[in-house]
Amino acid sequence: MAQQHLDPTDPTVTPADAVAGYLRARATEFLRALRTHRETGGGAAAGAEESTDAALALRRSARRISGTLHTFRPLLDTDWSDSLRPELAWLAGTLGREHAYAARLDRLVGALNRLSGATPFPAQQTVPARSASVAAGSRTPAAARPAASAVGTRPPAAPDRGNLTVGAAKAGALLDRQLTLARTRAHSAALQALGSSRFHAVADSVAVLASEVPLTPTAPTADLRPLAAAAHDRLCDAVTGLPLHTAAHPYNAEALVHGLSPDTAPHPQDAPWHQVRLLLRLHRYALEVLYPEAVPVDVRLLAAGEALNRHRDASEAGSAAAAAARTPRIAPATAYALGVLHADQRHEVEAARFAFQQSWQKEAVSTS
Amino acid sequence: MAQQHLDPTDPTVTPADAVAGYLRARATEFLRALRTHRETGGGAAAGAEESTDAALALRRSARRISGTLHTFRPLLDTDWSDSLRPELAWLAGTLGREHAYAARLDRLVGALNRLSGATPFPAQQTVPARSASVAAGSRTPAAARPAASAVGTRPPAAPDRGNLTVGAAKAGALLDRQLTLARTRAHSAALQALGSSRFHAVADSVAVLASEVPLTPTAPTADLRPLAAAAHDRLCDAVTGLPLHTAAHPYNAEALVHGLSPDTAPHPQDAPWHQVRLLLRLHRYALEVLYPEAVPVDVRLLAAGEALNRHRDASEAGSAAAAAARTPRIAPATAYALGVLHADQRHEVEAARFAFQQSWQKEAVSTS
Repeated sequence: MAQQHLDPTDPTVTPADAVAGYLRARATEFLRALRTHRETGGGAAAGAEESTDAALALRRSARRISGTLHTFRPLLDTDWSDSLRPELAWLAGTLGREHAYAARLDRLVGALNRLSGATPFPAQQTVPARSASVAAGSRTPAAARPAASAVGTRPPAAPDRGNLTVGAAKAGALLDRQLTLARTRAHSAALQALGSSRFHAVADSVAVLASEVPLTPTAPTADLRPLAAAAHDRLCDAVTGLPLHTAAHPYNAEALVHGLSPDTAPHPQDAPWHQVRLLLRLHRYALEVLYPEAVPVDVRLLAAGEALNRHRDASEAGSAAAAAARTPRIAPATAYALGVLHADQRHEVEAARFAFQQSWQKEAVSTS
Repeated sequence: MAQQHLDPTDPTVTPADAVAGYLRARATEFLRALRTHRETGGGAAAGAEESTDAALALRRSARRISGTLHTFRPLLDTDWSDSLRPELAWLAGTLGREHAYAARLDRLVGALNRLSGATPFPAQQTVPARSASVAAGSRTPAAARPAASAVGTRPPAAPDRGNLTVGAAKAGALLDRQLTLARTRAHSAALQALGSSRFHAVADSVAVLASEVPLTPTAPTADLRPLAAAAHDRLCDAVTGLPLHTAAHPYNAEALVHGLSPDTAPHPQDAPWHQVRLLLRLHRYALEVLYPEAVPVDVRLLAAGEALNRHRDASEAGSAAAAAARTPRIAPATAYALGVLHADQRHEVEAARFAFQQSWQKEAVSTS
């Protein structure tokens, strides 16, 4: 797949042009999102939703620039790109945190409702309905939620709380309190970061990119294909290291091993999966450079990516439930509900690994 | 399968002989087990293990006699067999309880160790290792455990307690206390039952069976095949009513819906599966009558039966964990561990349904 790229019959387009064009476009998006964010007041009042969207757009561009600098490193001024990349990573991390806490709370409150039988669904629709809610849960609800009013100790936003046990309701309220506080802090930290001199330096560098990409002298004659192929190889190598044999067996119970271990979260067994998720993203960005008009749709790669997102979300939600259970002086019923919730999310982790294995297997067959 | 039976070329063997022979053999086993139980003193002291084995052998014979009276009812004196069957069911239930509590405790302590990472196993061996332990766990450890010394509040019998968290250790101790108490009571109830006049009436009826089976006048000319086929049909009809479509999707999360519902255990969704388990057993006993020498080994039917046993065991263990969490004044860490344990067992329930669906699917294909 990474073997086909820009039209080789067009003599005016060089590989370096493709990289430079991609970086310029992302840099322009970055600067536009920054302007929107400033105009909407950083989410302080009425423009909260637009401001949240702008912050996510900033992060989106920052990640793509950083990934491209990494994959196509030999084409770019090394000192310059090596100093910019960690700064972009810092920015993307800072900007993503608020959104992550909001999505985590949505996921956990949704799970509490499901576990309480509050949202019964027909058995036949179980699997697609859950996949859909996972995909939607990682974006829509968080963006739609006004940041300012989310602060406080309000009960969970679940539609039907009548069916919740005392334990589930208390667990929901506790998670809401903790994750809303974390989210509010992340929001402040993001605002503070965007006003810092460190950020201004990043924005200046991105502004340079938008007009003139610092290419190396040999860039015009370079070949993009081996660089993109190397990104793909790094992904495949990392996948080879995953315990896919175990993941292929449904209900292998691997994700909940250590579910009660004295070691605190995060689970070390999740790390290689998170790493594959990052490498899959880099592979995707490399494809975006190779296919500037439109990346050919690869349903299986999309499914693999969604499975890894779900893996990450469930892993972090499970850790949040375990962390909440360590809150001093909670009621036993609350702790019990958090235990069920933790185990439920660890099984989501296992289910996501199974889903990844299934989609990856299909891919390997189709491209061989 | 139920279409082939006794050698039709042998003029001396009638269908009624087959039923009568089977009942006589089971009745003889019953009386032998009863004698052993009396000789070993009912498990009061040194002969505890033999006594436990004898009680299980009594139950084994009682269930087979009862099942045969049910499936081949038209061949037997109706008043007599209809009055004996509920008495055999009472006896089998009473005798099985002690063993069930012991097996449940073993299962839960084993799960606590697994969840604490105390017994790490290589990833590749996960699935077979667990299946084996499930099969073994329902028999060997309970039988090997001396009943008298099991009373008390000793900590869980886990091999490696160093890795248990405080919560897991306390949860284990609580379950041990509750299930050992229940087991001790069940042991006393079984001893009391075996000394009751109600039991003596059952034993008298079984003694009649051992010498002379009360057949109906038309029994010698009856055909066993439609009766055995009817037992098989009842099994297949009940399987048709199971949500196999959902069970076929790994990680459908169906078993943990209502995991936090205010309704207490047992889960109503488990009942149809328990019913299929009973019907599968009746089908198996009918095959034993048809094939008096040796029932042809059907690996798939064995796998289906094992999956349903595992379903029942996990269902009851999950309920025991939930019940223990309702103990007043437990520590939050204990409640948390019990919540994780409950969810873990509900996932075992889901895994068992998946395993049943897989083996049943294979059977349907092979016999069509």
